[in-house]
Amino acid sequence: MSITALTPRRGASPPSDPSGREPSPAAATRAVGLRAAFRSVRAHTGALAGPLSAEDQVIQSMPDASPTKWHRAHTTWFFEQFLLEPHVPGYRRFDERLAYLYNSYYVAAGPRHARPKRGLITRPDGATVAAYRAHVDAAVDALLADETALPPGIAGIVEIGLNHEQQHQELILTDILHAFSENPIAPAYDPEWRWRAAARAPGTLSIPEGIHTIGHQGDGFSYDNEGPAHRALVGPVAIARGLVTNGDWLAFMRDGGYANAALWLSDGFAAVQQEGWRAPGYWREQDGRWEVMTLGGLQPVDPAAPVCHVSYYEADAFARWAGRHLPAESEWEVGVRSGELADAFGVVWQWTRSAYAPYPGYRAADGALGEYNGKFMVNQMVLRGSSLATPPGHARTTYRNFFPPSARWQFTGVRLASFPS
Amino acid sequence: MSITALTPRRGASPPSDPSGREPSPAAATRAVGLRAAFRSVRAHTGALAGPLSAEDQVIQSMPDASPTKWHRAHTTWFFEQFLLEPHVPGYRRFDERLAYLYNSYYVAAGPRHARPKRGLITRPDGATVAAYRAHVDAAVDALLADETALPPGIAGIVEIGLNHEQQHQELILTDILHAFSENPIAPAYDPEWRWRAAARAPGTLSIPEGIHTIGHQGDGFSYDNEGPAHRALVGPVAIARGLVTNGDWLAFMRDGGYANAALWLSDGFAAVQQEGWRAPGYWREQDGRWEVMTLGGLQPVDPAAPVCHVSYYEADAFARWAGRHLPAESEWEVGVRSGELADAFGVVWQWTRSAYAPYPGYRAADGALGEYNGKFMVNQMVLRGSSLATPPGHARTTYRNFFPPSARWQFTGVRLASFPS
Amino acid sequence: MSITALTPRRGASPPSDPSGREPSPAAATRAVGLRAAFRSVRAHTGALAGPLSAEDQVIQSMPDASPTKWHRAHTTWFFEQFLLEPHVPGYRRFDERLAYLYNSYYVAAGPRHARPKRGLITRPDGATVAAYRAHVDAAVDALLADETALPPGIAGIVEIGLNHEQQHQELILTDILHAFSENPIAPAYDPEWRWRAAARAPGTLSIPEGIHTIGHQGDGFSYDNEGPAHRALVGPVAIARGLVTNGDWLAFMRDGGYANAALWLSDGFAAVQQEGWRAPGYWREQDGRWEVMTLGGLQPVDPAAPVCHVSYYEADAFARWAGRHLPAESEWEVGVRSGELADAFGVVWQWTRSAYAPYPGYRAADGALGEYNGKFMVNQMVLRGSSLATPPGHARTTYRNFFPPSARWQFTGVRLASFPS
Amino acid sequence: MSITALTPRRGASPPSDPSGREPSPAAATRAVGLRAAFRSVRAHTGALAGPLSAEDQVIQSMPDASPTKWHRAHTTWFFEQFLLEPHVPGYRRFDERLAYLYNSYYVAAGPRHARPKRGLITRPDGATVAAYRAHVDAAVDALLADETALPPGIAGIVEIGLNHEQQHQELILTDILHAFSENPIAPAYDPEWRWRAAARAPGTLSIPEGIHTIGHQGDGFSYDNEGPAHRALVGPVAIARGLVTNGDWLAFMRDGGYANAALWLSDGFAAVQQEGWRAPGYWREQDGRWEVMTLGGLQPVDPAAPVCHVSYYEADAFARWAGRHLPAESEWEVGVRSGELADAFGVVWQWTRSAYAPYPGYRAADGALGEYNGKFMVNQMVLRGSSLATPPGHARTTYRNFFPPSARWQFTGVRLASFPS
Repeated sequence: MSITALTPRRGASPPSDPSGREPSPAAATRAVGLRAAFRSVRAHTGALAGPLSAEDQVIQSMPDASPTKWHRAHTTWFFEQFLLEPHVPGYRRFDERLAYLYNSYYVAAGPRHARPKRGLITRPDGATVAAYRAHVDAAVDALLADETALPPGIAGIVEIGLNHEQQHQELILTDILHAFSENPIAPAYDPEWRWRAAARAPGTLSIPEGIHTIGHQGDGFSYDNEGPAHRALVGPVAIARGLVTNGDWLAFMRDGGYANAALWLSDGFAAVQQEGWRAPGYWREQDGRWEVMTLGGLQPVDPAAPVCHVSYYEADAFARWAGRHLPAESEWEVGVRSGELADAFGVVWQWTRSAYAPYPGYRAADGALGEYNGKFMVNQMVLRGSSLATPPGHARTTYRNFFPPSARWQFTGVRLASFPS
Repeated sequence: MSITALTPRRGASPPSDPSGREPSPAAATRAVGLRAAFRSVRAHTGALAGPLSAEDQVIQSMPDASPTKWHRAHTTWFFEQFLLEPHVPGYRRFDERLAYLYNSYYVAAGPRHARPKRGLITRPDGATVAAYRAHVDAAVDALLADETALPPGIAGIVEIGLNHEQQHQELILTDILHAFSENPIAPAYDPEWRWRAAARAPGTLSIPEGIHTIGHQGDGFSYDNEGPAHRALVGPVAIARGLVTNGDWLAFMRDGGYANAALWLSDGFAAVQQEGWRAPGYWREQDGRWEVMTLGGLQPVDPAAPVCHVSYYEADAFARWAGRHLPAESEWEVGVRSGELADAFGVVWQWTRSAYAPYPGYRAADGALGEYNGKFMVNQMVLRGSSLATPPGHARTTYRNFFPPSARWQFTGVRLASFPS
Repeated sequence: MSITALTPRRGASPPSDPSGREPSPAAATRAVGLRAAFRSVRAHTGALAGPLSAEDQVIQSMPDASPTKWHRAHTTWFFEQFLLEPHVPGYRRFDERLAYLYNSYYVAAGPRHARPKRGLITRPDGATVAAYRAHVDAAVDALLADETALPPGIAGIVEIGLNHEQQHQELILTDILHAFSENPIAPAYDPEWRWRAAARAPGTLSIPEGIHTIGHQGDGFSYDNEGPAHRALVGPVAIARGLVTNGDWLAFMRDGGYANAALWLSDGFAAVQQEGWRAPGYWREQDGRWEVMTLGGLQPVDPAAPVCHVSYYEADAFARWAGRHLPAESEWEVGVRSGELADAFGVVWQWTRSAYAPYPGYRAADGALGEYNGKFMVNQMVLRGSSLATPPGHARTTYRNFFPPSARWQFTGVRLASFPS
Repeated sequence: MSITALTPRRGASPPSDPSGREPSPAAATRAVGLRAAFRSVRAHTGALAGPLSAEDQVIQSMPDASPTKWHRAHTTWFFEQFLLEPHVPGYRRFDERLAYLYNSYYVAAGPRHARPKRGLITRPDGATVAAYRAHVDAAVDALLADETALPPGIAGIVEIGLNHEQQHQELILTDILHAFSENPIAPAYDPEWRWRAAARAPGTLSIPEGIHTIGHQGDGFSYDNEGPAHRALVGPVAIARGLVTNGDWLAFMRDGGYANAALWLSDGFAAVQQEGWRAPGYWREQDGRWEVMTLGGLQPVDPAAPVCHVSYYEADAFARWAGRHLPAESEWEVGVRSGELADAFGVVWQWTRSAYAPYPGYRAADGALGEYNGKFMVNQMVLRGSSLATPPGHARTTYRNFFPPSARWQFTGVRLASFPS
């Protein structure tokens, strides 16, 4: 996702989540306390980087991806820039030069290093970045020692910083998978890692026409693009309870799906031809059999597993081939609230047919932290749910992920829908 | 617009158009009879090409534009390919090679000449294309001599062909304006042509929340992307009665609008920097004063005229600067039906904040004629209304025009909206 | 060739050309008188444009080519700019705007229109350019009425202008052939035009080691890059008396020449792969037989005709395949002076293995006319001789043509050489 | 340089080098014995990589540069591929996959990893590459234990491998300097490193016209592009005894050299504008003063030091501004043999005005080792001498280095020449 820093929105009444499938991240944060949450999230980043050498962590395999070391440093800079520097008197920056190197795109936070050149920063080295993390962690830890004495607004900034870091945790995995996929020896991030089969959930959920409230309500954390909550007419529509699988996709391929222009959006078929797509991302044909590059290295394609690493263009073409559609994001949200959809979270992000756009009445927050969410609201499609790479406690029914329709390096899959005829 | 050939949809009851501002094209067609309508539309194409020399008509100034000669031949080929060849026994094609040269992108109609090379076709020459038009006109005229004896389906194909040709009529004007704008001596298509001032229409129209039927109903002609008609929740929203003017835009420019990244979508600001935009399309600063290239040649910018040749990115940034939004296409449609909006048709197309997407339940028709509308439903934004270049009888309240958010060579302008806070 | 205007160099004694194969242009010019030469060259341009319609003359099929109308206007501008404007009191320019449109790259002569956009100038139209030519012709004709009364330097400028126009005469043919080759209906410039067979000239000419004077001497016209004449060690080398034919080239193709990387320069093989070369330029395979686009339209490849439209890369690879080399330009010049080489002039330009570089002691002349010859002396290879498209009286033994090693749209062929082992 | 593996050429008589400024590498090799030479060269590579972390060694900062780890592995692969695998019975490759990863461009040696993706190979890691080096070193060491018993041809392969590795030693330094120059914190490869002043060597060396033998003779090692030795006419010419300095270059800059199109080759000025050149490579203006990125980090520009990191285009423009020329490579070679030229070796490579081309009678050797020298003989210019980064014992009077005219990341400088007028 295009990582953004957003304004928390709080309402009067805590919502109950009828799906029961996702933890309430804000509730979790509050339950354990802010300092414990901070320690936990920060430690998780360290754990994710654990299997990677200093060499693994320095490279950038394409402009849209970033080095692990950069993710580690940037998430740390975020706390230094927006929490410690303005709110902790006497705080001394670890190294002034890091503000330039590890700012991502916050124009209001000053000039920054060019994004496609993140992979050229061999120095400061990995050990220095570890020291930077420790330096900032200690300062934040001290600040959070007595949560009851926190000045107003501090908890909100920490909460944003933690959600921001969780987004980068997912990117650490997607980006290193891309980097390893470019290596002819196909390294494994975790040799034990395996895809699990999709849930068996036949049939569809029917949603009749009705007015629903879409978007985030209540006092839990959310990004500003999840609001304002607003009324929308949804349905009639039927949504598949289960995800499309590799087996389904192999049938599409055998039927010539990638060669049949009539199935594709015009821009999509142009991408097929220019990129030479003939299977999902990371798939490779070896002696007539399909293998796929995973976090566990190169593995045989499992027909029972959900298809992954498909672009919006492919998802849309597959749906047309199947005589179906992709769900709108509002349809997905209503469907998930019903608790009837399997694999809604924790497997693959699900492309919707909704272009990423502001909800009615949306207005970006002021200042650097709120500066930039709305700026990506064009030329991208919304994905809903979460993926196997999404960290614990980060998913949400109203969460709006978004990527350009050609993106394939995220853990992106397909759920189908259809309209009554 | 990406010119498409679509399936006419007919319903049971003719709708009444409350706005009273646009003619009903289908009604007009029926009133005068099919043959008269055919003659009228075909003659209009000839009239549009009248001021242009053979040299003017042969060039292509960018890949998205086409030569006038190409437009004249392609619209003729359309009748030959879809009407005469399959439905008139014994019809002899004027020249087999033209099918290859003047097919646009109908894959089902066979291979075709590469789009960016349309400007290299000096032969067949303009006179041959005129003979081609006469040959096809005569055959169609004979076919339509007795409308009461037409086989089923014929009238529908003619109607599509005429609507298709009307779309190219608009493109003849937008494309030659682009071509002339590339010529340092700034030729005038029509030296008498002048912009007229925008209508004086202060204030806004308020639309309360309500369920409305959006999309085309009734038995008049429409493109398939205008259906199916469906229910949608619209409002509350307030829509400006009048259009944004050049004077408004000059205020935006004086306020540094083109230099202030905070006002822009990220992709939009990238376009500003890459393309060097600092004013609307075709504007040129001469000795501190702004001039604009028009169909009448280079003329001073008139502050009272509606702003034109702005991209979606610019329209969106301007709205943000003004503390407003662009209307959604459904909001626009409901607003126009109220009859309260000025300059809705015949001045400039109006960008909406709606991404171009299928209406719920949309399914493309079968065969070459219906093959391709849905294929453009990504990476484009919807425009509503019509422009000064839209031919008489072609506009419609439910008409959905669409272009990429960076396009500026069409006659595109801005109407603002706002939400109650 | 990159058309340049250069300074004439005159020496003390007129050289005799031992080859007897090329006319002496300067001598010819003098024999008939300057005004007659002017009339003759100018009329030849008109004759070359004769078969072309106004539409044919306006387009530009690639950045390296120019429209016929542009060639006609630019060569006229040259006389206006460098002869009439500075040297004829009271001369009135035909139209000030043409100086901008039809300057090519003479920085000292002021700003100019972007080269790749020459094909967008539909106005001024072809008739206006004809009037421009007549206007300038009349003024020059009047100036040259009494050659004995010409101020010093005038004859030299006229001579340059005529040589300059002759270069553009060759380009009119090469550029329109390229434009027509892009048209699927393959128009013929002259339906009667046919390739003639190569001269039968078996065997090689052996040149022993010796010091020769290379470059232009004497009082005839030459470009400044042909001097200074200088001494060079040439030989031992053997040069083929005849040209490589299409039949030879077909053998190279049958032997897999285009697929064998070992035969190619690294940059050359990259061009093969990027451009998809598998035969000379303008060759097309139809049902297993080779045809070639010519000035006479599409014709069967004649094995007895000299190969044409090959790049330096191809010429070099062919030579390697044949176990031979390309001659150095000094070797070619010495060989031609011997009178033993067939088809040295008037068939195809012959690639040499010499990079285009200044002769020792070369120094560009001052001012706009001499400003620019040396500026092309990098990244190009020298060709010697002349082609079927070179106008009468323009060829010269010391003439140095030059093009980038990838260029194929000129009439370029191959003569081989070998070294004693 | 474009690293190549070439065939050693041996003649009958050992040449004496009159300049006395360069060691005779072959003589040195023989003096110490092959095994000692092998150990010495291999150890030097290790020493060069010593100051670099694993992170530093993995990245690739542009397609023309390579990671240090790649250089270390590729030079090792070279011995494995061409020496151990074919000539040592029972030799077991360290890891089959490395042949694919660390082949550079030897088509005859099999498929290979794409050059621009060398910086994505984090695994095998640096320690594995160290083990690879040790594995191969041990095998070669054993092979060379008794030099008197070596099969024929073995010594030649070792010699080539060592010269090949020395070329990569120079690239290790030029490539890491480029990588560090892309890092905003400007790391130093060796903080103690400083430029030294150019030798004070006023005046010129005059070479009268004469026939000289150019190219390599004798039984020492040389690359095949240094032969065949051949006779050439050289002079009259005068060559500067000393190099152009930063002080000279600053005068060129102050005189508007980078803005004056008349001084530049056309392609050169295009590069100036496209790349934004306004000073030599790695120069940066800080508060009105010039600094330069060096192996010692960012340092003030020393006017007395030789100018470095200039392209051929810049060298040529500077020479024109100075009213001089660049020497031809034959002139340089004759000049150096006279012993009168200062700083000929060990400071900066010196651009010549000679395009890189085969000597008369050159023919590439057979097989993978000799396959590829000639393939680069187009679109490049010859440099002579050697640089501060050239390893000890690698320079030679007849050595021909070559780079495209736009290259600036090598240690390239300027020596001027002039012709008698």
